Amino acid sequence: MATVNPPRGMRDFTPAEKARRDRVLGVIRESFRVNGFDEIETPVVEESARLSAGLGGDNEKLAFGVLKRGLTPDDIAAATSTADLIDMGLRYDLTVPLARFYATHRAELPPVFRAIQIAPVWRAERPQKGRFRQFVQCDIDIIGESGILAEIELITATSVTLDRLGVTGTTIRLNDRRILMGLLSALGLTNTESALITLDKLDKIGAEGVVAELREHGAGDAALATLEELLGRHANPTSAPTLAAMTDALPAGVAPEAVAELAEIAAAVGTGVTMVFDPFLVRGMGYYTGAIFEVAHPDLGYSLGGGGRYNGRIGRFLGTEVPAVGFSLGFERLVDLVLSDDVAESDSVAVIYDPQLSPAELIAHKTALVADGLRVRLVHKTKNTRAILDQLANDGFRRYAFLNPGEPLEWKTLD
Amino acid sequence: MATVNPPRGMRDFTPAEKARRDRVLGVIRESFRVNGFDEIETPVVEESARLSAGLGGDNEKLAFGVLKRGLTPDDIAAATSTADLIDMGLRYDLTVPLARFYATHRAELPPVFRAIQIAPVWRAERPQKGRFRQFVQCDIDIIGESGILAEIELITATSVTLDRLGVTGTTIRLNDRRILMGLLSALGLTNTESALITLDKLDKIGAEGVVAELREHGAGDAALATLEELLGRHANPTSAPTLAAMTDALPAGVAPEAVAELAEIAAAVGTGVTMVFDPFLVRGMGYYTGAIFEVAHPDLGYSLGGGGRYNGRIGRFLGTEVPAVGFSLGFERLVDLVLSDDVAESDSVAVIYDPQLSPAELIAHKTALVADGLRVRLVHKTKNTRAILDQLANDGFRRYAFLNPGEPLEWKTLD
Repeated sequence: MATVNPPRGMRDFTPAEKARRDRVLGVIRESFRVNGFDEIETPVVEESARLSAGLGGDNEKLAFGVLKRGLTPDDIAAATSTADLIDMGLRYDLTVPLARFYATHRAELPPVFRAIQIAPVWRAERPQKGRFRQFVQCDIDIIGESGILAEIELITATSVTLDRLGVTGTTIRLNDRRILMGLLSALGLTNTESALITLDKLDKIGAEGVVAELREHGAGDAALATLEELLGRHANPTSAPTLAAMTDALPAGVAPEAVAELAEIAAAVGTGVTMVFDPFLVRGMGYYTGAIFEVAHPDLGYSLGGGGRYNGRIGRFLGTEVPAVGFSLGFERLVDLVLSDDVAESDSVAVIYDPQLSPAELIAHKTALVADGLRVRLVHKTKNTRAILDQLANDGFRRYAFLNPGEPLEWKTLD
Repeated sequence: MATVNPPRGMRDFTPAEKARRDRVLGVIRESFRVNGFDEIETPVVEESARLSAGLGGDNEKLAFGVLKRGLTPDDIAAATSTADLIDMGLRYDLTVPLARFYATHRAELPPVFRAIQIAPVWRAERPQKGRFRQFVQCDIDIIGESGILAEIELITATSVTLDRLGVTGTTIRLNDRRILMGLLSALGLTNTESALITLDKLDKIGAEGVVAELREHGAGDAALATLEELLGRHANPTSAPTLAAMTDALPAGVAPEAVAELAEIAAAVGTGVTMVFDPFLVRGMGYYTGAIFEVAHPDLGYSLGGGGRYNGRIGRFLGTEVPAVGFSLGFERLVDLVLSDDVAESDSVAVIYDPQLSPAELIAHKTALVADGLRVRLVHKTKNTRAILDQLANDGFRRYAFLNPGEPLEWKTLD
């Protein structure tokens, strides 16, 4: 057989995989729904101008462009850059489309809009294990609420959803961009953008690596000594790194309002959810303006999702500032963690028929069984019964019967 | 507010629209499933070579191309046609992806594979009322069954699905490509491709228009006289245009095997489904090799879906011929016909809270109600209670309560 594959870095889903993914997505969707969120849908493409408006950070470079229609050979000859060739692109996240959607439909939406988006996004990344060029994101966002109730509802909804999925043992790491900025300011690190990029690598390069890189970038000895001390305390906390101990991890007087808000968020979410304060959590650059959070799992070297407050982005296409907080679950990582429930479906039956029977007789049997509430597959009998039964077991069937002329159906169970 | 729209010819779906579409899709999906079909999923893009392999007919011209990654200015300067610029495209139908999927996964699939694909496709058509550049198709296909049981199962599953959707009064028009070819041959119309294109316009240009166009293309007087007579009989049947009367509509001896098969298909599907024989049904060109069918609705000037046998296409990427029959429902047309059931959801409640309450108190109330099985939206109280209640009614809520400090919730019903 010729080798024929889906496009590079993308995947097909066979019936069993598709059914499993849809079951998990159904749990997530219903959990978000009962938590008061409403699902919307937008086209998979957006205009290039939106995708490259600066809302997408580094992902903007990863957008697949869609060729303009009606380009003539003269147009092509005259083109000097890709911008001359494309007018749309596949979305690389669900936040740019949400900002565009909100600008289009704001008048119809409630003043506080809680959005669900469960949909694929595309990124032209180098494919590697567990990283795909088409993958599903599960986003919830609250638009129009400036108070911390939004953060609390997002964290609660996410936590309830992980519970419903049976994913246990997760921890939510919390920080606030204002704390990060206050910390850098207290340390006298004035090149904040560069410092955040360095701090964001803490998990990978360790405290020593961070200090070395900041020194390279010109940070002074005093600042680095204090930072080293804080990082050491962070790595070896004297008490559990709970939110109660958060002030211990910071120089005195850093962003007191943000610290108080995080404490209030943690208290409201309650003790049923494990949360830790992580003053060095950065979550990329640029977007966030307030609280940021990330879901960590002890078995995984990466986060299951995260989000934060990004008051500047959603209003971008409206020309006004709209408060907004979002939380995105990485579905592709999550689906592997959910305990497999690929059990045979009890309503699925197979009728293995003698080919001497007429199509009219076969369809009459099938129609009657479907009307009885069963899911029915007709299977042409061959000499290799074993192969037929193996395929049925593989495809989730648990009962079957042979259909022969003049004989009643006799149901048997597949083992 | 600035005017901000989705890309030309594409649509957003607000929560009410999204919920309505998902409900209808859920009915279709479940109906196909119990009829023994299995859902698969493929990436939204395919390699350009697949999309332009000749399987897509006229739709191949309508594919949105995806720009190659990593094009240098030199590459762009050297490009002379769009083929130099793209390596993938958005799928314009679900059959090309199915053929590619089948070639990739054949070894894992049962010998007769019944596929469901419910997914969007993209076509760069001129947008107009009811025609979109992104729209959903609902396809079922049976691969690997050469007998008419496949046609019967597809027609039955489609009919059951329309019933479950509450769409009544539809008629299934039936023909067979072999009958069409036999008819043209009996008439002595040897330029069959051109004749089929003309016949396909019968609904639009009428019998006179068809005869005139065929004359223009060089058809002889004798052939046209016979055709005119047949078309007249077709337009004014002496008996109902049932399959029993089909031979009456054809010159003697045309494709007797195909005629017998259609009669057997009709008999097996049974009298619960209204079917008519239409010897002039063409359904585009090129693809089909046997039976073809179309779902007509008395209130509509267009079909709700259709399909047929296309034994050549699915095996294309395998290099072997694989028997296949497909039926595609046009979801965008169907969803408007389904009686609206946008009823308020009885489990949805709104809690209109006094902003003096703390976020911790609010989330505690919400969490308790969600745990009780309700869907809960928190709403900030304002002076304009009327506006709040109107929005809730609009968003499908039926119950609400005010939450004030120190007072219990008292549920009220929205009218």
